[in-house]
Formats: sequence, structure tokens, C-alpha cells
Amino acid sequence: MHNNKNSLNILKTAKGQIEAIIRMIEDNRYCIDISRQILASVALLKKANTKILNNHLESCVKNAAYSNDPKEINVKILELEEVMNYISKNL
Amino acid sequence: MHNNKNSLNILKTAKGQIEAIIRMIEDNRYCIDISRQILASVALLKKANTKILNNHLESCVKNAAYSNDPKEINVKILELEEVMNYISKNL
Amino acid sequence: MHNNKNSLNILKTAKGQIEAIIRMIEDNRYCIDISRQILASVALLKKANTKILNNHLESCVKNAAYSNDPKEINVKILELEEVMNYISKNL
Amino acid sequence: MHNNKNSLNILKTAKGQIEAIIRMIEDNRYCIDISRQILASVALLKKANTKILNNHLESCVKNAAYSNDPKEINVKILELEEVMNYISKNL
Repeated sequence: MHNNKNSLNILKTAKGQIEAIIRMIEDNRYCIDISRQILASVALLKKANTKILNNHLESCVKNAAYSNDPKEINVKILELEEVMNYISKNL
Repeated sequence: MHNNKNSLNILKTAKGQIEAIIRMIEDNRYCIDISRQILASVALLKKANTKILNNHLESCVKNAAYSNDPKEINVKILELEEVMNYISKNL
Repeated sequence: MHNNKNSLNILKTAKGQIEAIIRMIEDNRYCIDISRQILASVALLKKANTKILNNHLESCVKNAAYSNDPKEINVKILELEEVMNYISKNL
Repeated sequence: MHNNKNSLNILKTAKGQIEAIIRMIEDNRYCIDISRQILASVALLKKANTKILNNHLESCVKNAAYSNDPKEINVKILELEEVMNYISKNL
């Protein structure tokens, strides 16, 4: 495992939050409170995503750069451009 | 239940996605694929949040407006302002 | 004017920032620094947007609620639902 | 210039939009219409930012990777991690 232990814990917390939100809806709790919890989960998922991507930079991308293999470098650069595109649209 | 059935289903789907993402990390799957799945869950949670808030508008806020009770109206308006503030910071 | 003076000032600041960013690009300044400035402008625009919407709640929406006119209330509620939809997609 | 011509044009368009929004506020135009225009500018700025960062990947980051200089590579990787952090918080 890269060292995605941190992201794993964050995702497990987010999963627990979403289970709690499901119960809030089933218990007909107040909408505004439910909304706040959903956005707290969004914040957690964004945090996990950033950690995953930074681990990727520190491992896969750095290894590619050190490999001095142009083909491998180009693949990683193009992937990062793809990441920038979908992050800009989805965050 | 307000008719938050839709949001409930979306949240259950999001929960399933996050369980799958946890397995992806445990299986040391490629970071970029994991990141994409996380952002797909963020998109789902945003969708659920919008449905919850729109149901709130159609029920609690509309009822307050029809109530012709200034105090009740002001409470709902202030709550919506709070929602605008935290949405702007968290989405 | 609703009292959108605040938003007006924020937008004028954002305009000045964007003019500065244009010069940074023309001066071939470092990409990361340019990116940071762009996101600072995004944050300003979000802030102005929230103020505009909250002023709307305090004026147009509140007046509609006090009007006790179901048609006027429904129009405002539907507009707010539209706002929630495009905010969720664009912020 | 990196070839940030595209981003330059987008930013000039965004600047024009903001000037138009300022006039909308001064003309006391309807809040919802103003809000929509602000979010259209946010979308443009995000687009410009993504282009700037992708140009950075294609030029500065790729050059560092090809340089085979560990120090230069590490600097670029750390910068990208910083970018991921502030993008996650500001987009």
C-alpha cells in the first residue's frame, strides 16, 4: 500500500457519516441539519482525494521522473493533466 | 418523510461507492482510478444535498411563507442565508 | 440599490485582480503564482455571489413571503430551487 | 510566453463579464440574474486556471523530469502537492 492509510481512515469516517445521514433522513430529521452533514462528508472526501493525489505525486510521478524514461514521464504528465481537468469540473 | 426518498437512494449509492473505494485502496489499485471514484461520490453527495435543500424550500420554507407569521418567515430566511454561506465555502 | 454596495466593492477588487493576472501572464510570470491569483479571484467572486443571494433573500424573498400572495411566493421558491441547482454545479 | 494565449483570452473575457456585472448591480438589475453571471465568471476563471496548470505540467514539470536533476524534480513535485491542496480548498 502506497501509504494511503490516512485516506483509508478518512474514507471509513465518511462512510460512517453517510450511514448516519441515511438514518437522519429515515428519522425525518430537519433538512438543514441533514444538508450540513452531507457537506461535511463532501469536505472529508475532498481531503481524502487530495491525500491520494499527493501520494501519487510522491510515488508514481516521482518514480517516473527519476526513471529518465521519456515515454513513462509523458504518460504521467498526461494523467496529471486529466486530473486537473476533472478536478476543476467536479470539486 | 418530506419525499426525500430520492436523496435516500442517492446516499445509499454513495455509501456503496465509498465501500468500493475502500476496497480499491486495500487492493492497492491505481491512485488516479481511486481519485476518479472519490470525485464521483462527491458529485453524488452534491446531488443529494441539492434535492434535500429543494425539498426544504418546497415544504418548510413554503409553509412558513404561507403561514403569514413574520417570526417564522424570518427564521426560515436566516436559515437560508446560513445555507448560502456554508454552501459557498464547502461545495 | 438593494444595499449591494459590498458586493460592488468586492467585484471591483476582483476586476483589479484579474487585470493584474493578465499582466502576470503577459510578463511570463511563474504559472503556480498565476494559478494562485486566479483562485483568489474565484474566492472573491463566490463571496460576492453569496452576498447578492443573501440580499435577495432579505429583500425580494422576504417581501414575497410577507405579501401573502401564493403566486408570488411560488415564483420565488422555484427561483431559489434553480439557484440551488446551478450553485451545486458551478461552485 | 508558455503558450498561455488561450488563458489570456479567457481572462480578458472574464474581465469583460465582471465589468458587465458591475453595471448590472449599478442598474439595480434582478439579483438572480446577477448571481448567474457571477457564476459564469467563476466557471471561466476555473477554465483558465486549468489551462495554466496544464501548460505548467507540459513545460516546467516535464522539463524538470527530463533534467534528471533530483533536486529540481522534488521542487516541482512539492509545488504540485501545494497546488492540489489549495485547489481542493478553493475550487
